[in-house]
Amino acid sequence: MKQLECPFCKKTYALDLFQLFCSDCQEPLLVRSSVPFPKVRNEKSNPLDKYIDFLPIKKALHRFSLGEGNTPLLKLNRLMHKFNVPDLYAKNEMMNPTGSFKDRGTVIAVHNAVSLGIRNIGTVSTGNMAVSTAAYGARTGIKTYVLVSEDTSDEKIFSAALHGAILVKVKGDYGELFYKSLETGKKNHVYFINSVDPFRIEGYKVTAFEIWQQLGGQVPTHIFVPVSSGGHIIGLMKAFSELKQNKLTNRLPVFVGIQPKKASPITNAFLNGQSQITRIQKADSFAQSINNPAPPGGNCVLKWIKETNGHLLRVSDEEILKAQKKLASFEGLFGLPAAAAPLAGLFKWQAQNKLAPHHRIVLILTGAGFKNMAVLDRSQMPIYQTVLDDLDQMISQIGKNKEN
Amino acid sequence: MKQLECPFCKKTYALDLFQLFCSDCQEPLLVRSSVPFPKVRNEKSNPLDKYIDFLPIKKALHRFSLGEGNTPLLKLNRLMHKFNVPDLYAKNEMMNPTGSFKDRGTVIAVHNAVSLGIRNIGTVSTGNMAVSTAAYGARTGIKTYVLVSEDTSDEKIFSAALHGAILVKVKGDYGELFYKSLETGKKNHVYFINSVDPFRIEGYKVTAFEIWQQLGGQVPTHIFVPVSSGGHIIGLMKAFSELKQNKLTNRLPVFVGIQPKKASPITNAFLNGQSQITRIQKADSFAQSINNPAPPGGNCVLKWIKETNGHLLRVSDEEILKAQKKLASFEGLFGLPAAAAPLAGLFKWQAQNKLAPHHRIVLILTGAGFKNMAVLDRSQMPIYQTVLDDLDQMISQIGKNKEN
Repeated sequence: MKQLECPFCKKTYALDLFQLFCSDCQEPLLVRSSVPFPKVRNEKSNPLDKYIDFLPIKKALHRFSLGEGNTPLLKLNRLMHKFNVPDLYAKNEMMNPTGSFKDRGTVIAVHNAVSLGIRNIGTVSTGNMAVSTAAYGARTGIKTYVLVSEDTSDEKIFSAALHGAILVKVKGDYGELFYKSLETGKKNHVYFINSVDPFRIEGYKVTAFEIWQQLGGQVPTHIFVPVSSGGHIIGLMKAFSELKQNKLTNRLPVFVGIQPKKASPITNAFLNGQSQITRIQKADSFAQSINNPAPPGGNCVLKWIKETNGHLLRVSDEEILKAQKKLASFEGLFGLPAAAAPLAGLFKWQAQNKLAPHHRIVLILTGAGFKNMAVLDRSQMPIYQTVLDDLDQMISQIGKNKEN
Repeated sequence: MKQLECPFCKKTYALDLFQLFCSDCQEPLLVRSSVPFPKVRNEKSNPLDKYIDFLPIKKALHRFSLGEGNTPLLKLNRLMHKFNVPDLYAKNEMMNPTGSFKDRGTVIAVHNAVSLGIRNIGTVSTGNMAVSTAAYGARTGIKTYVLVSEDTSDEKIFSAALHGAILVKVKGDYGELFYKSLETGKKNHVYFINSVDPFRIEGYKVTAFEIWQQLGGQVPTHIFVPVSSGGHIIGLMKAFSELKQNKLTNRLPVFVGIQPKKASPITNAFLNGQSQITRIQKADSFAQSINNPAPPGGNCVLKWIKETNGHLLRVSDEEILKAQKKLASFEGLFGLPAAAAPLAGLFKWQAQNKLAPHHRIVLILTGAGFKNMAVLDRSQMPIYQTVLDDLDQMISQIGKNKEN
């Protein structure tokens, strides 16, 4: 029987998908690892099969899968040389089926829902998670509710709707909607797979396992990851902690969580030496996927970052925009602003003289840039115009201009 | 020394990146396979390493790669059951680094360019190929020109520009621009990796090799693939032919090429029993990536389809739109219209009673739907609206409505 556990008071709970917060601490519960001596099944290629001992599923059901995971870990040679950065890698989570890391969590949660006989799922999301949940709901053939805030971009809403999800735009406080959805879910028997859902978080662990194996069984010195609700970084940290617990590694990476300046409640608490986050009045970053004023997993992130000597950094929207351009123009990687935040954080870290030659750094690129084209600064993108007959001349002139 | 060969007159050519068409037949040249007994290196996981014996590269340089390939082959259980279709799979090429199959070709062409000391590449594209070439140009650190037609959507142009490509919007006939670019390229020493570039085509072979291995060393009975310039299907067909030639399989799949009714010059020739295509005056399909009035590889496609008892089908834009919705809502796969064209073709095929229970069909999904959201029919996507306080009631009502 699967058990959940509060990361604060350690109280355990029998599994109930409609009771996912500690009744004492009010914090999100996590899945308690249950297999005593988990093994990596290297003979398997599907990550759900390969890491099944570490996951809260009995059997990977490929009919629920869209082929999530097995994403590339790319060495970023050109950025390293240009900016004098030590060993640098990108874990490209943008290459998941719906273009973001969310898919890794959704597939585990959907397995769980179906195994418990639940036929209605849902999520509260500003974008990536909505699309991901809608896609897996379609693949699995279960009714899917997607609750979005009023201001969600049409692009994101319509792709979720195309998957057949039932879309509800909700007017009101987005932080409250998160908790309200769980209440509504309990009443109407809809399992809301939200950002800090314990099973979603279990899915994110696989990214960490892959990094570890892609580095030949080594742990990087640092992992830079954007932080919004906290669910993603909690999953990654939990994975490395489980590797260590099972003696598959003897050390943990240093996690550096990145938040946008205009939406950094966890980083604020960290820098002010507080043990609890305070929700901010209005999150106002253009990096929509990490523009979170009240991260439900914030206190857990804060606690774990402190316990493992990790760090939390704030970066400005301008720094994110510059990093987005650098990733695209030096490495061919076009990410959402949130996906570029780790590189912005790395440059900040470097400016603070915190990089050493022996460091081996992994940036987690969370979501594909195509998913929100509206945020790009188009004034910086000159486009030449010509007619067919003048093409030779124009190419020749551009070629002579060494600025290009 | 690599050699090129005309698929019509079989004349061979020493490699010259500025001479890629047969001087007699005016048809695009193909790479002549050179390794006598090619082997699949199953101990390798990167597809460029795994299939290197079949590819025109000496060594896979991972610093030029973005992790293309290794895409999932998904069984489409829900579509099969709902529409009474035999064994059906989707090869999800949307999961390539820039969201389309083009990446597989670009990486091989870039290897080739660099190995020959060429420092300027380019492409003529309405979209996917532009982004792909720009991304790999950035990753490799070489100057990249992207020539686009006037009417290319801003979304596609700006993501190529973000990669640092030099963008030129060219007013004039798009079919002529293709040939004009090669002329300009020769004059200005820019290798234009266009749609039927022989090295690009070599990259597409890998998709076929993966399908064959993902089916346990079996060849599907049918492959449905959208056809535009012809480069993609030529690569896929060439791959199976090489497998057969090397006795790795004893039969070829039946290829079914799909074109939109409003842009079907190859299918027109096929259905009219002609041996040469006639360019159409105006291609007018909403499926931009396959809206090609003058496919440069059209005659080769026509010849090979006839020789192998393949087929070419026309589908309407409305049929494509319906198939796009079905892929998304039954299987969680959101593709560009071009990516949905094969499923539209399959339904047409079924209506013609051409499916048999023993068939094993693979649909090639070419490009991710996020790349062009403008084409979706938004009137068909109802969105509920409510305020936070009324959420319970709304979800309860929707739940009772069995239509959803």
